[in-house]
Formats: sequence, C-alpha cells, structure tokens
Amino acid sequence: MKTLTLSIAANRTRSSDVRELLKYAQLPGMISLAGGLPDPALFDVAGIDAATAEVFANEARSALQYGQTDGQVSLREAVTGLMKQRGANVAPENVLITSGSQQALDLVARSILNEGDFVAVERPSYLAALQIFHLLGAETVSIPVDGDGAVVDALLSLPADKPKPKLLYLVSNFANPSGATLTLARREKLVRWAVENEVFVLEDDPYGALRYRGSPEVPLVALAEKVPGALEWVGYLSSFSKIMAPGLRIGWAVLPAVLHDACVRIKQALDLHTSTFNQAIAARYLASGRLESHLDTVCKVYGERAEALASALTEAFGDKLRFNRPDGGMFLWGRFEDGTNARELLYIAREKGMIFVPGDVFYPDTPDTSAIRFSFVTVDNAGLLEGVKRLKAAYDEMKQS
Amino acid sequence: MKTLTLSIAANRTRSSDVRELLKYAQLPGMISLAGGLPDPALFDVAGIDAATAEVFANEARSALQYGQTDGQVSLREAVTGLMKQRGANVAPENVLITSGSQQALDLVARSILNEGDFVAVERPSYLAALQIFHLLGAETVSIPVDGDGAVVDALLSLPADKPKPKLLYLVSNFANPSGATLTLARREKLVRWAVENEVFVLEDDPYGALRYRGSPEVPLVALAEKVPGALEWVGYLSSFSKIMAPGLRIGWAVLPAVLHDACVRIKQALDLHTSTFNQAIAARYLASGRLESHLDTVCKVYGERAEALASALTEAFGDKLRFNRPDGGMFLWGRFEDGTNARELLYIAREKGMIFVPGDVFYPDTPDTSAIRFSFVTVDNAGLLEGVKRLKAAYDEMKQS
Repeated sequence: MKTLTLSIAANRTRSSDVRELLKYAQLPGMISLAGGLPDPALFDVAGIDAATAEVFANEARSALQYGQTDGQVSLREAVTGLMKQRGANVAPENVLITSGSQQALDLVARSILNEGDFVAVERPSYLAALQIFHLLGAETVSIPVDGDGAVVDALLSLPADKPKPKLLYLVSNFANPSGATLTLARREKLVRWAVENEVFVLEDDPYGALRYRGSPEVPLVALAEKVPGALEWVGYLSSFSKIMAPGLRIGWAVLPAVLHDACVRIKQALDLHTSTFNQAIAARYLASGRLESHLDTVCKVYGERAEALASALTEAFGDKLRFNRPDGGMFLWGRFEDGTNARELLYIAREKGMIFVPGDVFYPDTPDTSAIRFSFVTVDNAGLLEGVKRLKAAYDEMKQS
Repeated sequence: MKTLTLSIAANRTRSSDVRELLKYAQLPGMISLAGGLPDPALFDVAGIDAATAEVFANEARSALQYGQTDGQVSLREAVTGLMKQRGANVAPENVLITSGSQQALDLVARSILNEGDFVAVERPSYLAALQIFHLLGAETVSIPVDGDGAVVDALLSLPADKPKPKLLYLVSNFANPSGATLTLARREKLVRWAVENEVFVLEDDPYGALRYRGSPEVPLVALAEKVPGALEWVGYLSSFSKIMAPGLRIGWAVLPAVLHDACVRIKQALDLHTSTFNQAIAARYLASGRLESHLDTVCKVYGERAEALASALTEAFGDKLRFNRPDGGMFLWGRFEDGTNARELLYIAREKGMIFVPGDVFYPDTPDTSAIRFSFVTVDNAGLLEGVKRLKAAYDEMKQS
C-alpha cells in the first residue's frame, strides 16, 4: 500500500541531535550538562503569579481574546524600555512579538531567503538556526569564532566561488555554543560591512542580560543609529525565555519597517498572533520592576556555577582541555587539545551517568570533533563537581582502552 | 540607496482583507458582524482563573520551563478524551499540540506540499487556509459547497488538465464562511475517495462543539477506523479558541504517524514548542469538567443570536437575501439573489456604522460578488437588530442611486 509522500522540506528535516540527547537527561541519576535549560528553581514564580493575577483582575477578557499579529501594544512599549536599557532607541512599531525568538528567526529567514540563497553563520553556530536555514533550503557559508566573537574580518574573504550571502546571522553575547561575546570594534565594523555590502545582519541576543562580570556591549541596532542607512540592514532578536520563563514562549524582533511588515504578513498566516494572555503577563511582569532583582539573583547563581565548573574542569584536565572562563550566559565551550573525540567520550560518559553536547553538532560544515559544550545552569555546584568527576572517569577509561 | 530584497514568499503575501476590515471594528459606535471573534463576555474567566491557580499551586516550575515539541502529555491525553466524545479513538502519540489550529494547518501544509503542488479546497473556503497555501506557492483547485457541505462528488470530475491534488482541506462543521456541515454520507464517500486516490484529507473542525440544534456528525478520523488503510489518509484539526479562549493559542492535530513526525520536526525548528504554561492551563481546565456547562451557555446565547440575525435579515430583505439558518457555529452565509454587489454594499454600510465581510474574499478562484458573511457571536441581540437596520439603510441607498 502506498503511503503519503512528504514534501521536500519535510524530508530535509531531522530531529535535533541535542533534543535526542536530552531524552537521556530524564534517566534517574543522570547529570545533564547538555541542555540549555534555565534552572527552574530560580524562576520568579511569585512574581509571575502576581503578574498573572493582575491580568485576571484587570484585563482578563481582552487577554483571553484574539489579538494583533504584531503584538500587544503594552508589551511592545515595555520592550522599547528594555531596548533603551540595552542602549538602543527603538519605536514600538519596529517591535514584533513572537512565539519565542526562535519564531522570529524563522520569520526573518522566510522573509529574506529563497531556496538556494546563502546565509553567513558563525562556526560554530546555534544549532536551531542551522535547522531553520536548512528547512528553507538555504546554503550556509561560515566565518570562524574566536574569544572576541565572530571574526568579522573573515567576511572580507568569503569564498569567491559562492554567491554573496543575503543574510548574516550571529549570536552576539555569550554565544551558544561558543560562549564568546562580540567586541565593540567588531560590532562597529560589522554594521559598516552590512551597509556597504547590502547584507542583512541579524543579531540574536537571548543571553546578554545574563552577565556576571564586565560591561555589556551595545546591540548592532544601537550602533546603526549613527551610521547612515545602517538601520535598514540590521535586526535584533531577544526573548523572555532566559530572563523570565521559557514556558511562556515570548520573544521579540526589532526590525526595519519593510522586514517587520513582511514578518507580520507571514506570521498572520502561520499562527495569527502570539498568546495575548502570555503577552499581558510579560508586560505586567516588566512593569512590576521585579526583573532587575531577579536577574541579579540568577546572575549570581549562574556565575558561581560557571566558576565551579571551570575550576573543576581545570583541575581534572589541566591543559588538555582549553576553554575561556564565561563572563555570562549559560555555556562553557571547550576543546580537547589532545585530540579526544568528544562524541566517543559522550557515549562512555553517558554510561557513567553524565551527558554533555559534543561540539561537532554545532558546525555548519567540517566539524571540530574535539569541541565540547557544557551547560552549567541547570545543575547545582555539587552536581557540576560530580558531573566532572564522571566525565574524568569516562575520559580515563577512553584513554586506557 | 538600495533596500533589502524580500523573499519570493514574502512578496507573495499580503495582509488579509478581513484583518484590514477589522480595523474599522474599533471605531466608536461601529457594529461589526465581520470578525469571527467569540464574545469575550462569555469567556469562563472564573474557570480559567481557577485552572491557572492550580497550575501555579501544583506545577508552576515545570509549566514555566521548556517542554516537548509534540505537546505536554497531560494535554495530549485530555485531547484524546475530547476526541472520544467526538466519536474518535485516538492515541496520545497521534496528537500534536500547536499554537492554535492555524499553526497545525501550516505544519501539515508544509509537510505535504511543494511549490506548485495542488490543494483541493472548498469554494468558498477559509481565508487563512488559502493564505497558507499561497505562501507555500501551492495552487488550488476548488469544489463547490452547498447546504450539505462540500460537494464530494465534484472530486470525481476535477479538471483533467491539472495535476491531482496532494491535499484536500475542508472545514467540516458550520464551516467558515459557508456555515454548512458535511453530511455523514458525504463524509463516508470522502474517506473512501481519500484512500482510493491517495490524497490526504485534512478536516478542520474549530466550530463543531458549538452546535445549537441537531446531532453532531462524526469526524473523518472516526469513520476511517472502519475503512482499511484510511487512517493513513485523513487528519483532523481543532482548537480551544472557540470553546475556551483564543488568547491562549492552543490547538491540536490528529495525524497519522508519518505526518505527525514530520510536523514535529518542522515545529521544532519553527518555535520549539507551544507554551507549556498555556497547555497546563488548558489541561486543568478540561479536567475541571467546566467545559460542558460553559459550552451549554455559549450555545444557548449564540443560538439565540443566530435566530435573531436570521429573523431580522428575513424581515429586512425577504427573498432578496437567501441563506440557511445556522444550526451552530459563528457565521451566517448569504447571497443576494438580486445581484447586489456585497463589496459595494460594504462601503456604504461602513459609513452607516456597520460592517460585514463581503463573500468574494473567500473564493480561491472566480468569486461570487453577491455573497456575504455575517458573524453573529460578538454582538448581542440588540446590536444585531441595529446592525441589520443599518445594513438595510445602506442597501436602500445603494438601490436608489
């Protein structure tokens, strides 16, 4: 009997390796440094509960009704306030509320890319972004990342045998997976490059607010205010998932008018709009003023965990594992200098009761098989130490065999 | 200065006429029989508030965390209970929770259709479905609708010069816009046609639970249980938007495994998953047992409004406006037998303080310019009567000029 023939797009997709790996995280006793899940114990449940109660008390019926595709006015205005804190002057008309910033990325990609078009990405890059580009049938060209973020100068020597990218996508602060933050000098250079080369640069910033040390860098959209024409060529994505709660699925995009309008038209067809109820909760939570102290708490705890993991790794592996100590975010990105294959190590570590993500999954092209990503935010200090102990046992076993 | 070049898909999209029209609904004093918005005065706010409080009391941290792409187990199991009431035996593994059923439709369409593929739709058809197919670059072929729903026999004489459709999409109960319900005989015929012709038939059922009179028809997925091989060729979509609250953006799809898995892989890239928080609220609301009495209330009020509108229209227009009295749902679909152009009438009616949707927007091909759609659920009886009065004044003015 014949069965349904799927579309080309559906046949192109496969489930993310990381999502598959996370199934192991559910096993009893497993220490997972794999997933990028915020620690739910730190959620400001009381604050979100209070914001929800306010919604029910003041605007229940409108919050439960259909809403505008571009997002509720109250939340878009609140987001302009957040953007102001991050250094950018943004009008509410340029803010689009989405179902997590993942959806914003899909909308921007669908608004710009045709099948076969090229996208410039970081090497390594955020895995789910690669999935989106792949789903659309776009090709990637990659630029390397170092401790200062994406190597912007590499854009000057993109392969001459490939078409110019239509879009450049990067995670600017405490990147997933590299942990790196793009320096100011590179940001300025990137904005000028975008205008001169007429390539849209999309900055994804889910983690910037999770800074434990040092001063924040301004978003590209802020730098673009001073470069003639540049606001047409840069966009910005962020999310409430890491600063408030991922379960609400609220993200946002700051985009120039032409692109904003295209994304709104597409979103209207895709899901009409993002939950008005959750938007109302997020707006009231921001208005409550609790975000700042909540972030202080989260950053303090995450910062301590980053230190605990970094110290334990140094103690266990010394020079054999090279990494930068994180100044923020959720990830520590390392590389075995002795050529250890991280995926093989994972299979042994899994048996010993700990998992991580082998770095190879994050490469749009030739992977670095010795790269490794640890998340240090879901597990407490004791768990991190035990996780590293198990990792070291797996490593030792691998080297003996 | 050069500006960003949008994708082919983005350039194909345009904002929905209905959405544009709804801007007029905001004007003071305007009586809108245009939008398909449930009456927010009937929302079971107390029940949803109680379900939300239960979520905060019992599962706040998991409901605010990331979740599974296919949906929370508690809600998928609750949906199987709803499906059982509707006559179908469904396994939770075949249920996919989506951000409104609109997203489910997009996922199914993306999983099956390539650019240039054909989709069979009703004439008239749900507008936002046409938008999705258009966005994907698919072509439509249409079959007529009469008082018994889609004319299934028309599938036997599809144009020979066009490729066979890969998908057939229809709204089975109290359809938007036609108000018609597909009869059992046609449902049975349609299921057999799907298997024999190897065309996937997607039944969209947002309104079936809003029945004021008569007995419900069973979903195609229920009939397919008795036809060998048929479960591979039929799917079912529904939503909490019309029975609970649209602002939560929770819908679901019942799909065969191959298609379910493809939709999950695509959804993972698009938005990771639908709000876990809202899913938890919906699951607890269903568990509370309040849905049945809530639906009784809603159906009683909507049924009275349908009667009020139908009677007022008959009184005002007599034989000149032909329509069937609704047995459920939210829409009354009519046709001016005297050749009145509904869009021209709209422009005059708008000036007189009432709006409706001209039927022409719902046609995938040659429109019926005398068709007209009224929603009777957002406005109370007095408003409906005043709306018809204004409509009649507009009609009289049009006929005099």
